[in-house]
Amino acid sequence: MRIVLKYGGSSVATIEKIQQIADYLIELKKEYKEIVVVASAMGKTTDGLIKLAKEITPNPNQRELDSLMSIGEQQTVALMAMALTAKGQKALSLTGYQAGIKTAGVHTKNKIQNISSERIERHLAEGNIVLVTGFQGINEAGDITTLGRGGSDTSAVALAVALKCECRIYTDVEGIYSVDPRVYPEAKFLDKISYEEMMEMANLGAGVMETRAVELGKKYNIPIFVGKSLSKTGGTYIMEKNIAMEDKLVTGVSITKEIIVTTISNILFSSENVAEIFSTIDSCGLNINMITQNINKYMKVEISFSCQASEKYLLEQVTEKIKGRFSTCEIELNENLGMISIVGVGMINNSGIAGKFFSVLSKNGVNFYQVTTSEISISCSIDRENIQRAVEAVGREFSL
Amino acid sequence: MRIVLKYGGSSVATIEKIQQIADYLIELKKEYKEIVVVASAMGKTTDGLIKLAKEITPNPNQRELDSLMSIGEQQTVALMAMALTAKGQKALSLTGYQAGIKTAGVHTKNKIQNISSERIERHLAEGNIVLVTGFQGINEAGDITTLGRGGSDTSAVALAVALKCECRIYTDVEGIYSVDPRVYPEAKFLDKISYEEMMEMANLGAGVMETRAVELGKKYNIPIFVGKSLSKTGGTYIMEKNIAMEDKLVTGVSITKEIIVTTISNILFSSENVAEIFSTIDSCGLNINMITQNINKYMKVEISFSCQASEKYLLEQVTEKIKGRFSTCEIELNENLGMISIVGVGMINNSGIAGKFFSVLSKNGVNFYQVTTSEISISCSIDRENIQRAVEAVGREFSL
Repeated sequence: MRIVLKYGGSSVATIEKIQQIADYLIELKKEYKEIVVVASAMGKTTDGLIKLAKEITPNPNQRELDSLMSIGEQQTVALMAMALTAKGQKALSLTGYQAGIKTAGVHTKNKIQNISSERIERHLAEGNIVLVTGFQGINEAGDITTLGRGGSDTSAVALAVALKCECRIYTDVEGIYSVDPRVYPEAKFLDKISYEEMMEMANLGAGVMETRAVELGKKYNIPIFVGKSLSKTGGTYIMEKNIAMEDKLVTGVSITKEIIVTTISNILFSSENVAEIFSTIDSCGLNINMITQNINKYMKVEISFSCQASEKYLLEQVTEKIKGRFSTCEIELNENLGMISIVGVGMINNSGIAGKFFSVLSKNGVNFYQVTTSEISISCSIDRENIQRAVEAVGREFSL
Repeated sequence: MRIVLKYGGSSVATIEKIQQIADYLIELKKEYKEIVVVASAMGKTTDGLIKLAKEITPNPNQRELDSLMSIGEQQTVALMAMALTAKGQKALSLTGYQAGIKTAGVHTKNKIQNISSERIERHLAEGNIVLVTGFQGINEAGDITTLGRGGSDTSAVALAVALKCECRIYTDVEGIYSVDPRVYPEAKFLDKISYEEMMEMANLGAGVMETRAVELGKKYNIPIFVGKSLSKTGGTYIMEKNIAMEDKLVTGVSITKEIIVTTISNILFSSENVAEIFSTIDSCGLNINMITQNINKYMKVEISFSCQASEKYLLEQVTEKIKGRFSTCEIELNENLGMISIVGVGMINNSGIAGKFFSVLSKNGVNFYQVTTSEISISCSIDRENIQRAVEAVGREFSL
């Protein structure tokens, strides 16, 4: 039997925690003959490295930032391999390139292209527990790349796909709740959730799991277990819809506390112009959520989109490029917003949900602005000061 | 014009120092079209990493220790590349494996086998300042290796050999003195020194340069400049004997403050037994200096050798293995010793030097025990408490 486990930064934050995980793995080895462990950087290591880079320059070279950030994971897996070998368990650590994790894309936001798992397979066959750095890989140019925040989840699921086995993501929370329990303590714990719901919730700020990881799990139908490191109870299975589904219309609420909504106006409407704006956003690596577009009577287009407040530095690159390209355009930023979303596979066939959602918000004095919907979710931007009130009202209304 | 520069850990200990070096390199780029920089880990970073490993286990797995230790240099070169690119200079960093540095040997003490410099050449041709991690490479198995303490000097000289150019080693001292000026403040500064003398002095504890680096410089006749980082004056050229030679019999004095002399006795003499003892020492990676051997009338052999006190953990592995193999043997450690050596190419044809050296020591009440000589040096072990007195007496006697 074979398994991939992933430990997040808070789970490996201290030497003591690494030792405890090593003990756990040695126990688990009795049950699973082949174990691959993906680990993140210890605690706040990556933040510390980024801080160092920012001391050099506010806009560090992204290729170099990738090389710098990748050392955090290398530290964790080397220490974990030492802990295991010191306890008499054969083990060895591999960096992204040693593990054959090939990536492509923009530096600091690469995507895994494929995994050449021969070396991992060989070390597993030799009886090793194989420890792989999460969050990183190597691109075609032979440069070290990273997968963006939360990328270790993707590393783990991608390895589970390559190695054709189950995947467990260990973190510092018990699993998935219908609403973030820090915001809404009455939130319900979910034993199971479908890939689709989890993707929406992750996308919409639930924060427990990386969206791309869930997407990958869905694509190759790899069940993903999310649970608390070293805990023997709890945990949520992310799996196929028809199995996981309970007959609920709304499964969860997600919030993003700080978003910026950018409105670009006074640009002559043409598909080329709109396409150019979105490809500029893409080339800067900015992740955007809610997009709305209007065309006024003078054939000028007005485009609004939202992004995480933490990506403001990328947004600034975007607006600068757009100003350079469209000299007459006007750009307005609204930084005082958050986002609330409801998610549930039952929504598809229930048009009444949206109405119920909006009426709960307005009854509770929560104004909403941009609105976007997917088959299984509805999101809207609201004032930051109203987030807590909105979550509580929506949580009560949908019994989450 | 092409050049390899190396910056040691104290020269890159802070962000400010890295910025200053970046400014210096941009200036130097006007003079040298192609610049390769080898950098060590910032300040005490490597010590910090080793400390982390020791918290896991007193005897960390050496393969994993190599992977762990290698991250220090990766941090420095990534930060330096960011500093350069932020100042508008094309630059990029390469790890040991990216730079094509192939090594072989025992983990934590690897030796460079060859350098595939195509990638460096390509990036130089693109106009980049190329920053390469010192101290590390990759072995045939694809594992990260390190070259032992001071290995960055070797990385730099090996790169200068591969790139067919001069090499400058920047450190926190002005260059090479006849005697360590911290011990003997009247020591003379040396503008030039031969490879041979420098090797002896490095071997014998002078500490400024790694012996293997000098050896490599000698083998390929690469002149090596040693000077203080960012200083415009000072510096010592290490170069061929016939050029560097001044008509001096003794060029310098080296000391090693803390050595351990190990005496192994009561083993039946045979070449096989002696060979086995030395191959045991070798397999544990222990570096030894003075070796003496005696055979008593019962045909039992007595072997003494010295090593750095800092390598006691390796010595313990050696003695344990030897006890396991030769059950009757007796092993005695004398830990209260230091070593003093005089070095000079003029010694070869001057048998009077040894007598003068020993008589100075004894006139000043310094007992000496084990003695070894090479063509251009004489070393002996003395009590640690007598080191300062010995250096001063010898320095005066030979006008160093």
